[in-house]
Amino acid sequence: MANKQFDVVVIGGGPGGYVAAIRAAQLGLSTACIESESYADPKGEVRLGGTCLNVGCIPSKALLQSSELYEQANHSFVMHGISTSGVKMDVATMIKRKDNIVGQLTSGIKGLFKKNKVTLLPGHGKFVSQENERWIIDVNGERVEATHVIVATGSRARHLPGIPVDNKVICDNVGALQFDSVPKRLGVIGAGVIGLELGSVWKRLGSEVTILEALPDFLAAADQAVAKEAWKTFTQKQGLDIQLGVKITKVETGKKGVTVDYELGDETRTLQCDRLIVSVGRVPHTEGLGAENVGLSINPRGYIAVDKNCRTNLPNVWAVGDVVPGPMLAHKSMEEGVMVAECIAGQKGHVNLDTVPWVIYTHPEIAWVGKTEQQLKNEGVEYRSGQIPFAANGRALGQGDTTGFVKMLACAKTDRILGVHVIGNNASELIAEAVVAMEFNAASEDLARICHAHPTLSEAMHEASLAVDKRALHF
Amino acid sequence: MANKQFDVVVIGGGPGGYVAAIRAAQLGLSTACIESESYADPKGEVRLGGTCLNVGCIPSKALLQSSELYEQANHSFVMHGISTSGVKMDVATMIKRKDNIVGQLTSGIKGLFKKNKVTLLPGHGKFVSQENERWIIDVNGERVEATHVIVATGSRARHLPGIPVDNKVICDNVGALQFDSVPKRLGVIGAGVIGLELGSVWKRLGSEVTILEALPDFLAAADQAVAKEAWKTFTQKQGLDIQLGVKITKVETGKKGVTVDYELGDETRTLQCDRLIVSVGRVPHTEGLGAENVGLSINPRGYIAVDKNCRTNLPNVWAVGDVVPGPMLAHKSMEEGVMVAECIAGQKGHVNLDTVPWVIYTHPEIAWVGKTEQQLKNEGVEYRSGQIPFAANGRALGQGDTTGFVKMLACAKTDRILGVHVIGNNASELIAEAVVAMEFNAASEDLARICHAHPTLSEAMHEASLAVDKRALHF
Repeated sequence: MANKQFDVVVIGGGPGGYVAAIRAAQLGLSTACIESESYADPKGEVRLGGTCLNVGCIPSKALLQSSELYEQANHSFVMHGISTSGVKMDVATMIKRKDNIVGQLTSGIKGLFKKNKVTLLPGHGKFVSQENERWIIDVNGERVEATHVIVATGSRARHLPGIPVDNKVICDNVGALQFDSVPKRLGVIGAGVIGLELGSVWKRLGSEVTILEALPDFLAAADQAVAKEAWKTFTQKQGLDIQLGVKITKVETGKKGVTVDYELGDETRTLQCDRLIVSVGRVPHTEGLGAENVGLSINPRGYIAVDKNCRTNLPNVWAVGDVVPGPMLAHKSMEEGVMVAECIAGQKGHVNLDTVPWVIYTHPEIAWVGKTEQQLKNEGVEYRSGQIPFAANGRALGQGDTTGFVKMLACAKTDRILGVHVIGNNASELIAEAVVAMEFNAASEDLARICHAHPTLSEAMHEASLAVDKRALHF
Repeated sequence: MANKQFDVVVIGGGPGGYVAAIRAAQLGLSTACIESESYADPKGEVRLGGTCLNVGCIPSKALLQSSELYEQANHSFVMHGISTSGVKMDVATMIKRKDNIVGQLTSGIKGLFKKNKVTLLPGHGKFVSQENERWIIDVNGERVEATHVIVATGSRARHLPGIPVDNKVICDNVGALQFDSVPKRLGVIGAGVIGLELGSVWKRLGSEVTILEALPDFLAAADQAVAKEAWKTFTQKQGLDIQLGVKITKVETGKKGVTVDYELGDETRTLQCDRLIVSVGRVPHTEGLGAENVGLSINPRGYIAVDKNCRTNLPNVWAVGDVVPGPMLAHKSMEEGVMVAECIAGQKGHVNLDTVPWVIYTHPEIAWVGKTEQQLKNEGVEYRSGQIPFAANGRALGQGDTTGFVKMLACAKTDRILGVHVIGNNASELIAEAVVAMEFNAASEDLARICHAHPTLSEAMHEASLAVDKRALHF
């Protein structure tokens, strides 16, 4: 039997991989995508969409939405004049809704593969060798030949030595999305995006949540004004117990749940909890890829080494997404996937990492693009800053949610926007305008002169751009 | 006693007027703003913010938010696993919250006047004469002199002959925002923005709502694909009874409420309702302005005639907002206010009416900027179109709200974006990105190459731009 032969074989069906496969096929290349994970699919079928869709961004957003509505019912309704009694959350229904959304989207990608004529190869993909300028990939014992290979194997949750993740009592992102009840006491190790999002979900539903973070600074990657506002909101208003600069010394599972011993400064403390989420970052996933069989270069931190067009050290082998350096964000992976497919097809592609937006889907949401104020200071860039609180925004008042602000940073000499930082309701959507502006090298003056619909939260972006020049109209 | 003298006197303290005043003062001009309306202020004080803030956009958004939460509690909670019993709306609390928001914002503008050193002149402003190149304005008997006058007298609700508005049983926008209970049967004349928004509020709270529209087409100004989707959603899913091509023949108020006789085609019909909202457009407000005293030119439709910089026929007399031609939108008025203040200060200003966004705050929201498809057809412009439903968007699925779509229209020759039309949750915020893109003369290809955060509703904008070139990735 002849080998299966393709112009492009993509290893991994997550956001970087499936998008690369679809775009390659759209460009007329015969394309296959290898995926091995079934993510507890009820029929045991391989599922596309990767971590993001199956056990990451999408299911967490579903739970965040459900828990946010529950929170509103319990706390916000009264000011609107709405009374209810006996507000209850049925966790099983909430989880099932989340599972349905994930199921719908993952089978949607299979539909997109059919529509775009991408061949799905279920199984584990592994480099075997290079023969006659073609790459030989083993897929569960079957030999597949490819002119181009795109590695999109993603990342996996970082686990810590001495903290055995069973995804029942001690969970990473996978188990934390499948709780069958609201834990009375929830521990979270790591105050990053995942820890804050999932901590928020269960806090809203009634858990006592304690988050232990090794780093001394809260949300160190965010603008410090945003981090400060987030800290105040999460800890004081929402009651998340976040402890920074923590050193975990021992984690033990017993009949009563999990005991976490840790040091905080000179103190020795113990956290007793019913469930523990470990969210201490993610590591690139290259095990079993057969990199060593073909000499694929992996950098000392475990990432596949690539140039700015995501070319590896091997001819016609590319890598995109979490398995290469750069922010571990689905949308960054997708853009890299498109770029690589277009480069393979002889087009010119690029991804501008300087304008990749970041989002944390807590409430308030946090989103930013470009440089933080502390980065500009460190780099010695002279800048002007404009900051407008949502408390001065009519739409935010109408929505009854005035937490947060928009902060804009612009070059003091050229007025070019260098960074935009939003904390507040809908920050995830508001940031899109800032990304577009920055892609066009907009000056803050440009945004200041663009009409913004009234009344909208986007007007806070407008006012922030005016505030850069100290001429805010509504603050 | 010396006359009060100012570089700039603004007549009218609505969005166009108060913004013009603030900007003029920021630019170093001595500035006063005349306002006569107190909008039923509890202390009887004059209120800034005009129709928009006091009896328009802001209070309606407050009621839309409250009623939307009530609607969610009754209809959306169940899918999330949230159970409640006895969901009730206390209308008095809802109205009081709305009044508080309005009160807070209107006194906020007084604070902005103080901060920016704008003098508030309470009273009715009227042109008297021109003396020594200065304009003489009468403010409740007091003589005020101004080098420049900006007329920003706004608009008032259009009333119909034979339909006496008492703002108790038969209401325009003012009374419709003050209902003390949910009318069992609500009639609305006019299926425009105000009729749809307020009809939605009371429908959600339990009213049977019938909207009678004289025009044969629904939302004729919107893109027809949007109008069609809106019609389907409002009438079939939400149960608004909207009747088009209606001719009202008689309206009578009796003990049992209001009786509206009307013709629909060959049929004669009667609508019996407890309250009636008349929302059939707005007319520019120039009565009592003293235009005739100074020869200020008013066009046959009642608007003050202005050039593109909002100059009237009189030297140093300007007019902005609803009282001049163009869309009656608060944000358009504000931009004109800024432009005029900057022109007076010797700067160059402009307002691009082609990129003024439109928003209807129903649920789903409707927002657009630029040309509709039917406009392009009528103008003989060759275009390409991309349309992406929110049903293909992960965030929309997560939020449990997949109604609607994003539609992008781009020039077939240059690929420049000519119009963007959104119907769906958060359309009012999503449109900001499109406005910025159009202000930069972006091609659809430009938006297609800009990274959009995942998972967000904004990704539907991204996909629509890809769809223009028939290369959507997720649809």
